[in-house]
Amino acid sequence: MIHIKGDRLLSDLRELAMIGKFQTGVDRVAFSAADIEARRWLLAKLQAAGLDASMDQVGNVLGRYPNVASAVLVGSHTDTVPKGGWLDGALGVVYGLEIARSAVEAGERLTTGIDVVSFQDEEGTFLPFLGSRSFCADVTDEEIAQCRSRDGTPLTQALAGFTHEAPPLQLDRARHVCFLEAHIEQGPRLEAAGRCIGVVSAIVGIRRFRIRALGRADHAGTTPMVGRSDAGAELIKLAVWIGEEFSRLAGPDTVWNIGRIEFHPGAANVVPAEAELLIEFRDTRADTLDAIESRLLERVSAPQNRTCKIEAEQLARIPPTAMANDLIELIQRAAAAAGEQAMLMPSGAGHDALVLACFIPAAMMFVPSIGGRSHDVSENTSDADIVRGCEVLASIISAVRRKFSAAPAS
Amino acid sequence: MIHIKGDRLLSDLRELAMIGKFQTGVDRVAFSAADIEARRWLLAKLQAAGLDASMDQVGNVLGRYPNVASAVLVGSHTDTVPKGGWLDGALGVVYGLEIARSAVEAGERLTTGIDVVSFQDEEGTFLPFLGSRSFCADVTDEEIAQCRSRDGTPLTQALAGFTHEAPPLQLDRARHVCFLEAHIEQGPRLEAAGRCIGVVSAIVGIRRFRIRALGRADHAGTTPMVGRSDAGAELIKLAVWIGEEFSRLAGPDTVWNIGRIEFHPGAANVVPAEAELLIEFRDTRADTLDAIESRLLERVSAPQNRTCKIEAEQLARIPPTAMANDLIELIQRAAAAAGEQAMLMPSGAGHDALVLACFIPAAMMFVPSIGGRSHDVSENTSDADIVRGCEVLASIISAVRRKFSAAPAS
Repeated sequence: MIHIKGDRLLSDLRELAMIGKFQTGVDRVAFSAADIEARRWLLAKLQAAGLDASMDQVGNVLGRYPNVASAVLVGSHTDTVPKGGWLDGALGVVYGLEIARSAVEAGERLTTGIDVVSFQDEEGTFLPFLGSRSFCADVTDEEIAQCRSRDGTPLTQALAGFTHEAPPLQLDRARHVCFLEAHIEQGPRLEAAGRCIGVVSAIVGIRRFRIRALGRADHAGTTPMVGRSDAGAELIKLAVWIGEEFSRLAGPDTVWNIGRIEFHPGAANVVPAEAELLIEFRDTRADTLDAIESRLLERVSAPQNRTCKIEAEQLARIPPTAMANDLIELIQRAAAAAGEQAMLMPSGAGHDALVLACFIPAAMMFVPSIGGRSHDVSENTSDADIVRGCEVLASIISAVRRKFSAAPAS
Repeated sequence: MIHIKGDRLLSDLRELAMIGKFQTGVDRVAFSAADIEARRWLLAKLQAAGLDASMDQVGNVLGRYPNVASAVLVGSHTDTVPKGGWLDGALGVVYGLEIARSAVEAGERLTTGIDVVSFQDEEGTFLPFLGSRSFCADVTDEEIAQCRSRDGTPLTQALAGFTHEAPPLQLDRARHVCFLEAHIEQGPRLEAAGRCIGVVSAIVGIRRFRIRALGRADHAGTTPMVGRSDAGAELIKLAVWIGEEFSRLAGPDTVWNIGRIEFHPGAANVVPAEAELLIEFRDTRADTLDAIESRLLERVSAPQNRTCKIEAEQLARIPPTAMANDLIELIQRAAAAAGEQAMLMPSGAGHDALVLACFIPAAMMFVPSIGGRSHDVSENTSDADIVRGCEVLASIISAVRRKFSAAPAS
């Protein structure tokens, strides 16, 4: 058994949260000065813990467990959304640090060690999952060359500061037996159920569309109501239909969101000539996503009773990704042995595990989010739940290491 | 009778449309270089026509008819909305120029002359009706000091280039017997009815509100549908209700518009924390406006079945303004004598006549807008309708002059 030190874990998390501190949260977007400082902080901590650690040319940080032939890969990411929370991916990274450090200190002699990773730009300031995709050799130079942040900065410019770092760190399929990612839930389910540990069944698939209505700008005072081609009114009708129809088609875990609506030209006295909305929907079941998508596109292309043209453009189509069944079962057993009944649940958000799962067995463990809050400075988890989560993950990792370790290392 | 020259009228309108030309329209927002050039062009034309013309410190241009004790004030404005049409207010100004010029040329000796005016910033680039309000001494220095354009430029900065011009031109109640404003209809009614001349019964009152829903930002993937406080969804429900309920309460001429909707933070994967819309409604009847407003505010303050707070802020409350009845009748008679049956209709848009009507009798005449288009480069009126409109306005002005002229001037 690995015995983690709860106080040291909390102290490290709080120290890391000072880097890029913003109100009660952190602002540490990928490639910002704070992001880089956080990665150097982790590098030093991993080295001090006895791991062979380095940072590569995209900003990934990897600490290799000493004197082992194989390793469980554990981690997440330390970059955040703008004005984000202090835990998010940082929790999973510092869990990895604390568990590997405790294992080294205990002098355990299993042949399967614990490698700790912090991937770059999970949040997509430039390119979502840039770090984990680079780690899995799953991103092209062309994609990197074309990529820009929302404010127009080329990714290549952000990367220019890293050219003196190590060549890309790579997934080593001979060494890395599986990937385990701990993360805050970012939702209210664990808290509502009074559970401390979640285990992810699958990461949801995401479909995202821009829907645009094309009408005609008219003077809103001089143009009678009859005869207008009001793109705004047409889009509002569609938005209401989405709420009603998606409710009908949804499975128990389906979620959707109209996150943006814009009217053009956007003046009080001009009938909107154009209106657009962003709609996304998520589920772990591809057939549910298919059913919703086909109904949506059918409605968009139906011309009846319409004063405007409507068109839809698909912006994202990310398939659902199941986590490894044997790891899920192992997590449930190890959590139970540690006294926690893990709650099986989908992950409604994307995570680096989504990328890793295409290459090696991957699984995720959640701890509760107070009030379900995340991606905001109000994001939090109780100290007790933070420490308990790390203890349970340590048990899980011990179980995985025992499973994969043929014999004690010399 | 005044005999206007149709070719000269069209030539002047086309010459003016070259100043600030944008595609098939003009971009001549108040105080822009093009706007000022247009005002100097008018000044020179009025002087060449024999009027005593000047431009004042806000950019109003007034041409005084020579050797008369009183005058019909005729005109409109030459500023435009961004990327606007070539006629809009310019039509009424050039009508005034052509009719006054023709009257001077004819050597008519009535004691009531024709003063021609182009008011500044009718379109509200800085302050709607700035010119006509200044002309009527109906704007305070404080209001001017505080006013900024949409892009943040202080009005005082725009005015700084005019300090060497004449002191404010002022309405002279001893001289100005009434105000007549010709304008394109900016709507489809005349065209649809096959009429050439409209006479305005009243300028509609306008009520404008910003309505804001305040919810809670949540991760749209990890937060179940139940329990969200989705400001966007709440506002969409309200927008649909507005469409249905306003239809029920509307009179035959009521119009309304939701010209803008915005969600914040506006990301596809974040449940909207805030959402706002701009709604305005217009009618010539104050009781209809009252009924709609009270129903709207009742709905906004009704808390039932609501996941978000909703609040309403009144942005505008412009009362309906009736045109002078005796002028309406005079216009109808003069148009009929000229062979045109004038169509009585509300003006759904605000005009300088709305300001002048508070101080002297005022009336408006409309000519058809092709396809009802305005405030856009596609705005147009046939040459025949433009010339016919000027001939009818000349007849109307002759009738007004005869009414007010006690005896021929010496």
